[in-house]
Amino acid sequence: MSVIAELSIFPMDKGVSMSPYVARVVTVIKASGLAYDFGPMGTTIEGEWDDVMQTVSACYKELEQDCDRIYLTLKVDARKGRTGGLKGKTESVAAKMA
Amino acid sequence: MSVIAELSIFPMDKGVSMSPYVARVVTVIKASGLAYDFGPMGTTIEGEWDDVMQTVSACYKELEQDCDRIYLTLKVDARKGRTGGLKGKTESVAAKMA
Amino acid sequence: MSVIAELSIFPMDKGVSMSPYVARVVTVIKASGLAYDFGPMGTTIEGEWDDVMQTVSACYKELEQDCDRIYLTLKVDARKGRTGGLKGKTESVAAKMA
Amino acid sequence: MSVIAELSIFPMDKGVSMSPYVARVVTVIKASGLAYDFGPMGTTIEGEWDDVMQTVSACYKELEQDCDRIYLTLKVDARKGRTGGLKGKTESVAAKMA
Repeated sequence: MSVIAELSIFPMDKGVSMSPYVARVVTVIKASGLAYDFGPMGTTIEGEWDDVMQTVSACYKELEQDCDRIYLTLKVDARKGRTGGLKGKTESVAAKMA
Repeated sequence: MSVIAELSIFPMDKGVSMSPYVARVVTVIKASGLAYDFGPMGTTIEGEWDDVMQTVSACYKELEQDCDRIYLTLKVDARKGRTGGLKGKTESVAAKMA
Repeated sequence: MSVIAELSIFPMDKGVSMSPYVARVVTVIKASGLAYDFGPMGTTIEGEWDDVMQTVSACYKELEQDCDRIYLTLKVDARKGRTGGLKGKTESVAAKMA
Repeated sequence: MSVIAELSIFPMDKGVSMSPYVARVVTVIKASGLAYDFGPMGTTIEGEWDDVMQTVSACYKELEQDCDRIYLTLKVDARKGRTGGLKGKTESVAAKMA
C-alpha cells in the first residue's frame, strides 16, 4: 500500500509561538529519508505504513522530551498500487480542472 | 482573527477515484477569491472566519448535489494579529531549521 | 442529508487547563437544541448541515471573545436517508460484533 | 505521558456500508486490553504511546487484508501526570458547566 499521511503536532503548554517546535518535528521527518511536503497546516509524509508510523512516533518522542502536553492530528490515505504518490495526487486533480 | 483552514472532502459512495470530485471542490474554493493552497491531503484556505466557513459550505453543497455520502475533515488555526498567513507560517518554521 | 459532526475546539494561548473553555463550548452546543454527545476528544452534533455549521460558528465566536489563538478540528459524516443518527451508527456496529 | 487517541478508520472501496469494517476494527481495539470508548465518529483509546500506536497499526493491518483503499484520522491528546483519563476529561468539563 502507498501510504500518504499528514501530520500536525504541537505542544499545548508553550504559549502561542509554535514554530521552534514545528521546526524540530520537520527536522525529524527530513532525517527519516521519506518523501515529504511541508505545508501551513501539517507535513505530508509518503512511504510504507511501518516507516511512516515510525516517523510519526519519532516526532512525538522529540517533543515528549520537554513538553508536558502535546496535541497531534494524523490523516492517512492508503491505496494499493498507487504510483506517483504526493505529486500524482495533486496532478490528477489539476488535470480535471478546466 | 486570521483564519487558516484545511479542508478535505470526498464522497464515500463513488468508488476509489476521487479526483473528479476533488476538482469540483477546488474549483469552488478558487471561485471564492480567498487565498488557498491545494495540497495532497487537503486544501488550505485563508480569510476571515465567516468567509472561510461560507466557502466550506459551498464545497459541501457542490458535492451534496449528486453524492449520497460525504466525508469531510476541517482543521482550523485562528490567530489574532497574524500577518503573512499561509506563507508566513511555513517561512517562520523554515527560518528555525538550521 | 443527516449530518453527524464531531467538533474539537480549544484556545492555544491559555495554558494546559482547557476545561473552562470546553465547558463554554459545550454550553453553546447544548443551547442550540441539536442532538449531541459530549466525549473525551470532541463533541458530536447531529442535524441539518446549516444548523450544525451555525452551531460550530457560535462555538468559535464564543472563544474568539477572549482567546488570541484557537485550534479547531471538525469531522463530518453526511448521509442521505440515514435515520437513527448518533445512536444508530454505534448500534449498527455493535450488532456486527459477535 | 497519558495518551488519549481517537481513531476513525474505514475502507474507501467498499461502498457506503462501513459497519462490518468498523466492527472488525473495534474488535481489534477490544483485544488490545487498553481502555477504550466507542463513539459515533471514532473510538477513543487510552494508554502509553507505544501501546496505543501498536493498536492503531493492528487496526490498519486488519483492514489492509481485503481493502484496496483506506482512510484514517487520528487525534491525540497526550498529557504528563494526567490521572482519571477518559472519564476524568469529561467529568472535569461537566463540573464547570453550571
